[in-house]
Amino acid sequence: MSANPTAAIIIIGDEILSGRTTDTNVNTIAKFLNALGIDLREVRMVHDIEAQIIEAVTAVRDAYDYIFTTGGIGPTHDDITADCIARAFNVQISEHPAALKLLVDRAAKMGWELNDNSRRMARIPHGAELIKNPVSAAPGFQLGNVFVLAGVPKIMTAMLEDVAPRLRTGRRVLSRTIKLTYVGESWAADVLRDIDHRYPDLSLGSYPYGLLPGEFGTHLVVRGQDENDLDAATTELIKRLEPIVAETQQRQPLASLEELTV
Amino acid sequence: MSANPTAAIIIIGDEILSGRTTDTNVNTIAKFLNALGIDLREVRMVHDIEAQIIEAVTAVRDAYDYIFTTGGIGPTHDDITADCIARAFNVQISEHPAALKLLVDRAAKMGWELNDNSRRMARIPHGAELIKNPVSAAPGFQLGNVFVLAGVPKIMTAMLEDVAPRLRTGRRVLSRTIKLTYVGESWAADVLRDIDHRYPDLSLGSYPYGLLPGEFGTHLVVRGQDENDLDAATTELIKRLEPIVAETQQRQPLASLEELTV
Repeated sequence: MSANPTAAIIIIGDEILSGRTTDTNVNTIAKFLNALGIDLREVRMVHDIEAQIIEAVTAVRDAYDYIFTTGGIGPTHDDITADCIARAFNVQISEHPAALKLLVDRAAKMGWELNDNSRRMARIPHGAELIKNPVSAAPGFQLGNVFVLAGVPKIMTAMLEDVAPRLRTGRRVLSRTIKLTYVGESWAADVLRDIDHRYPDLSLGSYPYGLLPGEFGTHLVVRGQDENDLDAATTELIKRLEPIVAETQQRQPLASLEELTV
Repeated sequence: MSANPTAAIIIIGDEILSGRTTDTNVNTIAKFLNALGIDLREVRMVHDIEAQIIEAVTAVRDAYDYIFTTGGIGPTHDDITADCIARAFNVQISEHPAALKLLVDRAAKMGWELNDNSRRMARIPHGAELIKNPVSAAPGFQLGNVFVLAGVPKIMTAMLEDVAPRLRTGRRVLSRTIKLTYVGESWAADVLRDIDHRYPDLSLGSYPYGLLPGEFGTHLVVRGQDENDLDAATTELIKRLEPIVAETQQRQPLASLEELTV
């Protein structure tokens, strides 16, 4: 669909795979990348286990332009991401003076003592560039094409601000959404398939919502980089769906078609 | 940690990677597996792209006891999961009589005509066993150790009921959670690390919550299969954390320790 830069995400943490925590970082990063015209190609979620983290990083880092990891950079024994990244890149890891200063200053400001556990958060693989954490100071880092971010969503999100200027951007993927109320997706499928074939640079998706009993329907999403193509396809889609909606209204008067403007 | 059966999840769908939809199926399946004593080892999220789906299935299906896929089994052109699974297993795919009957009966009951698009949902790889869909009839299927489920969360969740009896169960992983209010995770890290070392069959995790300004703190989670070990470790953890909390209270009177009973 594009020569946009590509990306993958690796979510690190036992709490995700045990079901204790529902991940939201994938969605935040996916939207962030989409806005920059960077194509998110895949996501992996792994445990806080050295072999798994290294394997996942090694599997994806040559395959995509950018890799984002979240989780495992805190002060406790299960925070092993920085060490794993160093091993995956075969570089040393040690206390980074600027990272240490951030932690010392933060502790002073909070009236805390910087203990040895917090101090571990200053350990950064050699050759990495720090990523600013405006929430709680302990930095993330960028090593090559790998961006190592916090797992706590609020911190992770704040770190993306410092990441954005470092990324090569592409053409943003735009989308149009058509909401078909009381129209099942199979009724629109022929039209959708036909338009998908005729606009090879666009991608069309169909997502049912709601379920009987009660309101149900289908969201049709047209995605692509070229606004003219997108408008033409959406206009055609609507025109060809109108008779289907009209026919449905004979059985279900509340059936309708509406273009959403989200 | 266990000789429990193992599992992986493959989430299939452009809408997840574009950021349009936040996945919740990982969390639902993770909790389901946890309750059955099955260890979820990894998750992958891929696009509705044949090569990606086949590659992901092939990469994991010999590595784990059970694989769960979600998404891509509806009636539209982008629903290609069943074909990809057939290709990954190198088996044929065709209309399954029992699946077709389910769809025909459902359409009759709803007063709909079963069109060719909906009829596509009866195409099932040879050798697969159907998985019941009590919500909207169109079945999932099990081929070998791969369970192919719907993407719509309500349908996916309902399908798990028919999946559960087919799974070999293990020892359920139990957990205890201690909430430390106004105690940073680095302050508890020494105790946590020590207990983690001394109970090699347990896994201890530390998860900060909240962020300054406002209440903040740490959830410590002890996980394991042996209830006696779990109780002993938790009791010891609490005993050794109490002085740390008492010390913290001198600076922050609201600091506290509480065992949660979720």
